[in-house]
Amino acid sequence: MLYGGIEAGGTKFVCAVGDESGNIVKRDQFPTTLPEETMQYVFEFFKDFELKSLGVGSFGPIDINPNSLTYGSITSTPKKGWKDYPFLKTLKASYDIPLAFNTDVNAAALAEATFGAAKGFDSCLYITVGTGIGAGAVVQGNVLQGMSHPEMGHIIVRRHEQDTYEGSCLYHKDCLEGLAAGPAIKERWGKAGVDLADNKDVWEMEGFYLAQALMQYILILSPNKIILGGGVMKQKQVFPYVFEYVKLLLNDYVPFPEVSTNIEEYIVSPGLGDNAGIMGSILMGKQAYQEQL
Amino acid sequence: MLYGGIEAGGTKFVCAVGDESGNIVKRDQFPTTLPEETMQYVFEFFKDFELKSLGVGSFGPIDINPNSLTYGSITSTPKKGWKDYPFLKTLKASYDIPLAFNTDVNAAALAEATFGAAKGFDSCLYITVGTGIGAGAVVQGNVLQGMSHPEMGHIIVRRHEQDTYEGSCLYHKDCLEGLAAGPAIKERWGKAGVDLADNKDVWEMEGFYLAQALMQYILILSPNKIILGGGVMKQKQVFPYVFEYVKLLLNDYVPFPEVSTNIEEYIVSPGLGDNAGIMGSILMGKQAYQEQL
Ligand SMILES: Nc1ncnc2c1ncn2[C@@H]1O[C@H](COP(=O)(O)OP(=O)(O)O)[C@@H](O)[C@H]1O
Ligand SMILES: Nc1ncnc2c1ncn2[C@@H]1O[C@H](COP(=O)(O)OP(=O)(O)O)[C@@H](O)[C@H]1O
Ligand SMILES: [Zn+2]
Ligand SMILES: [Zn+2]
Repeated sequence: MLYGGIEAGGTKFVCAVGDESGNIVKRDQFPTTLPEETMQYVFEFFKDFELKSLGVGSFGPIDINPNSLTYGSITSTPKKGWKDYPFLKTLKASYDIPLAFNTDVNAAALAEATFGAAKGFDSCLYITVGTGIGAGAVVQGNVLQGMSHPEMGHIIVRRHEQDTYEGSCLYHKDCLEGLAAGPAIKERWGKAGVDLADNKDVWEMEGFYLAQALMQYILILSPNKIILGGGVMKQKQVFPYVFEYVKLLLNDYVPFPEVSTNIEEYIVSPGLGDNAGIMGSILMGKQAYQEQL
Repeated sequence: MLYGGIEAGGTKFVCAVGDESGNIVKRDQFPTTLPEETMQYVFEFFKDFELKSLGVGSFGPIDINPNSLTYGSITSTPKKGWKDYPFLKTLKASYDIPLAFNTDVNAAALAEATFGAAKGFDSCLYITVGTGIGAGAVVQGNVLQGMSHPEMGHIIVRRHEQDTYEGSCLYHKDCLEGLAAGPAIKERWGKAGVDLADNKDVWEMEGFYLAQALMQYILILSPNKIILGGGVMKQKQVFPYVFEYVKLLLNDYVPFPEVSTNIEEYIVSPGLGDNAGIMGSILMGKQAYQEQL
């Protein structure tokens, strides 16, 4: 049996077909342009397959409330043509199979919990630190959603004493994303993160902000595993600062052994590299297929 | 069919027996003294009933990991006699029925989602602002747990500009609980909250701190309903400040109609008054009974 997946990013779309065991049998990617054009590529990609389901992990914010009139749409995005785009409706018109629609990061969390760094656990948190900061989660085996999907990148953190940068978030200025995503690093230090590898102050400050966020996530969600991905996290030297500050901040309140003695195995890099999003999209579709059996 | 429940608080224990429909047929309470004595009262209370299950909503932190050696114990508490007390094991020795063990606030969240202010929703957050600040949550119909239970009261908030009080948390000094629980109010202003009803500054500051916490909870968990209970929240004048600051802080990022147009129905007082904890304890037991059928 074959299951389709679409990882819909603001920069590129990845399409793939997976089999029963999670093996990818075909995969392709193309730039995100206007919806009509991009979707042509999608239809073209899947046309020779008989799919059991199709799952979408999309950039957001998106409407994932099945009772909403705009369910399955991308809501507010600066990306030309995509604001209010009825993504799921468009797919429904062409595919008479179970469809799933959620965020790219929720999809990634599901894939990591199923095949990756959080395999064997029924909860995990997947965070990407890149152009923005986004996070998805699996709770008791299911991707996390309530009123909407999480928007964990925009939480409040305390400012670092040495930080005079005002913050780049259009909505909150110095929320986590406004202080710690790739563009904030670049604006604050005058160079992109990749060219700042040797500057310890950069990564100490980055670790300070990420650790505060992780503390909030741990106290609120209590995930069994935390996965830190995205371009910025390729700077592995930030991990030790994250470990140190998380321990310092939690200060052994509720002495989780995961944190106090084994933090290097608790806060980790993705197990699936850049494949988490697309594999998770396939998985969400597969879940939708199984639910309707 | 009858189901038992124990709401184990640090000050008092409530025991109750409920029927199928959630009606309480017997209820009693007694002070929390040493475990042996307190448990005598518990056994005595239930002795004439043939229960299908028994659920416990306990003060914490507690060990709710079924794979742990100390599963079902109270872990670190200053309360004399209760540190490391094997609560669930003690019950197991006397009752050969399905047992459930979770936090008092997770129990309360479940009851509010089933019968109370969040009835009809499959997620909610229940927060108590009293001697401490604790929260429980229901996510997709189940009480929230992962590595452990949530400890949302200890998250980081930014300090209010006018606040010079250092904070009362033994672990984090000026975390949310350290700045906004009942004892912090009393220490900062020199009088208990109940005697400060007329001082607007008190409730503006309280609203500022609680709103920051709610913003984090909303962005991370996206609950369908937020319920604010506990002694401090009897000061209803704090609600308008909470509403105002939550809106200000979120600044319409992801324009949830729940927040932007209907916040008075989104952030509410408990629907079950002081009965949420005990009703939820009964419910958790009932769930355990149904799962083993
Ligand atoms: N190796 C790297 N080291 C540090 N920063 C990086 C690295 N690669 C990408 N970034 C930063 O991450 C951001 C891009 O994030 P990325 O996760 O690659 O893509 P996106 O978030 O757009 O999907 C940019 O701000 C870039 O400067
Ligand atoms: N009506 C009230 N107004 C303001 N503060 C109150 C009120 N009632 C209780 N408190 C405060 O709440 C705390 C007690 O919390 P409560 O929820 O009643 O019990 P507990 O948290 O111990 O279960 C105390 O610090 C007390 O000062
Ligand atoms: Zn923001
Ligand atoms: Zn604290």
